[in-house]
Amino acid sequence: MSFPLSDLTKPLRVASGPVDLSTIETDAAPGFDGSKKDGESALLALGPQLADLQERLFADGKSGGRRSVLLVLQGMDTSGKGGTLRSTVGLVDPQGVRITSFKAPTPEELSHDFLWRITRALPPVGLIGVFDRSHYEDVLIARVRSLAPPEEIERRYDAINAWEAELVAEGTTIIKCMLHISAAEQQERLLARLDDETKHWKYNPGDVDERELWPAYQEAYEVAIERTHTEVAPWHVVPADKKWYRNLAIGTLLHDTLRSYDLGWPKADFDVAHERQRLLDASVR
Amino acid sequence: MSFPLSDLTKPLRVASGPVDLSTIETDAAPGFDGSKKDGESALLALGPQLADLQERLFADGKSGGRRSVLLVLQGMDTSGKGGTLRSTVGLVDPQGVRITSFKAPTPEELSHDFLWRITRALPPVGLIGVFDRSHYEDVLIARVRSLAPPEEIERRYDAINAWEAELVAEGTTIIKCMLHISAAEQQERLLARLDDETKHWKYNPGDVDERELWPAYQEAYEVAIERTHTEVAPWHVVPADKKWYRNLAIGTLLHDTLRSYDLGWPKADFDVAHERQRLLDASVR
Repeated sequence: MSFPLSDLTKPLRVASGPVDLSTIETDAAPGFDGSKKDGESALLALGPQLADLQERLFADGKSGGRRSVLLVLQGMDTSGKGGTLRSTVGLVDPQGVRITSFKAPTPEELSHDFLWRITRALPPVGLIGVFDRSHYEDVLIARVRSLAPPEEIERRYDAINAWEAELVAEGTTIIKCMLHISAAEQQERLLARLDDETKHWKYNPGDVDERELWPAYQEAYEVAIERTHTEVAPWHVVPADKKWYRNLAIGTLLHDTLRSYDLGWPKADFDVAHERQRLLDASVR
Repeated sequence: MSFPLSDLTKPLRVASGPVDLSTIETDAAPGFDGSKKDGESALLALGPQLADLQERLFADGKSGGRRSVLLVLQGMDTSGKGGTLRSTVGLVDPQGVRITSFKAPTPEELSHDFLWRITRALPPVGLIGVFDRSHYEDVLIARVRSLAPPEEIERRYDAINAWEAELVAEGTTIIKCMLHISAAEQQERLLARLDDETKHWKYNPGDVDERELWPAYQEAYEVAIERTHTEVAPWHVVPADKKWYRNLAIGTLLHDTLRSYDLGWPKADFDVAHERQRLLDASVR
């Protein structure tokens, strides 16, 4: 259920086995030769194609198709999950997209298995679901902050793999992206929020507490990616210091996925000539 | 809780008392002098302002504000509810919007009061909710198709008014729009769907059955608008034969609403200098 990757996105797919994030450059633009300006133009040029492909998926879903897309965005604070949504997901019809931003679980959510709230947020057929954070928080912050015992974290990797495999078997393509920024870039972005009064609302003192756990988070990501990188639901590490590259890469991943379906337009399940006549005959007022 | 209307949107607000839709032109562009091209440019120019105002609403909601916007789109088939979503609502950050398309109620929904499913779909604070069809179907198709007894329909007008008044008192601005097209325009749009293979999936033979009830629907709209046009939640009839005008009018209504809040950016609830220092001190790896 994997999809053919373009030259741009091929280098983003991680290899099997242990993952060492420190060897993956955060400010690179793998698979893309051009400048920032070229990258922005390339994304804009992708817009109409993405919109067309998304509409085909939507039409397919309305006509008995069982496909859907789930884009999972993970990354440290300021890595640009929100920016990706604005710049990339914003290129398609908002009716065809279902965005869920996962926060700390509510008491009700905590009284269920960790995948309960995730399952409820899945996109229906024909739609592109986007998770801003996801079930991966349950093996990331949960591990770093010891929110669950180690054996439960262990159980979750397998549970995620089984759950994702089932989802893929049902017709969902899962695109898992880690937005990979450097600690220096994060510092710069947090400082920029502090230095701009119109951005203060985006700043949370807790972000610095999390930042102090940077190495633990990187390690948690490495383990999570290694353990849940599967043939049917592979991980992509997207260098995200360059916002334009991050947007283009994720736009291209979405594009590759949708194109791999090779969807035509659904055939009419009614008699077109007959309907045409009915419509012409129907007198109104 | 009403908002100041611009010259463009002022003529769209219906007057109190009986409504006669046949006296409201469907292919007009009230309050706008320019051409189609001018109208399209005006909407594009509105885009960045809309996005900025939407972000302020979002920031306000994150910072204790209780405001939200609910845009209710009603209209006959092909009147452009979906097109409005793509062209107008698509101008703002998709994270700030919650779209609900109401279909025929499910058995579970039918086992509750008609406002139950509507209440569940309300936008949280800081968001713009958009209803593609709404609780008004419960006094429109429900009346035309006798899906509920007349006394229940009667009850619903009052129930809607009480429910909407409560919503407004809580901090939601409700923008109610009827997208007003002519029967001839609908025929043309349905024929266009039949004549284009890529649009067949949008066509539903049931649309012609509904079309044959056009006068009954117009009457149901007239009664519903008259009965539920209130000071706190007024109705707008938007001439919608011209798609560009429809988009511009609804974009302007959204814009007027958001601007009326006169929202600045939330003040920091933390010590900025202290946070700056913490951030600089926090050593990572």
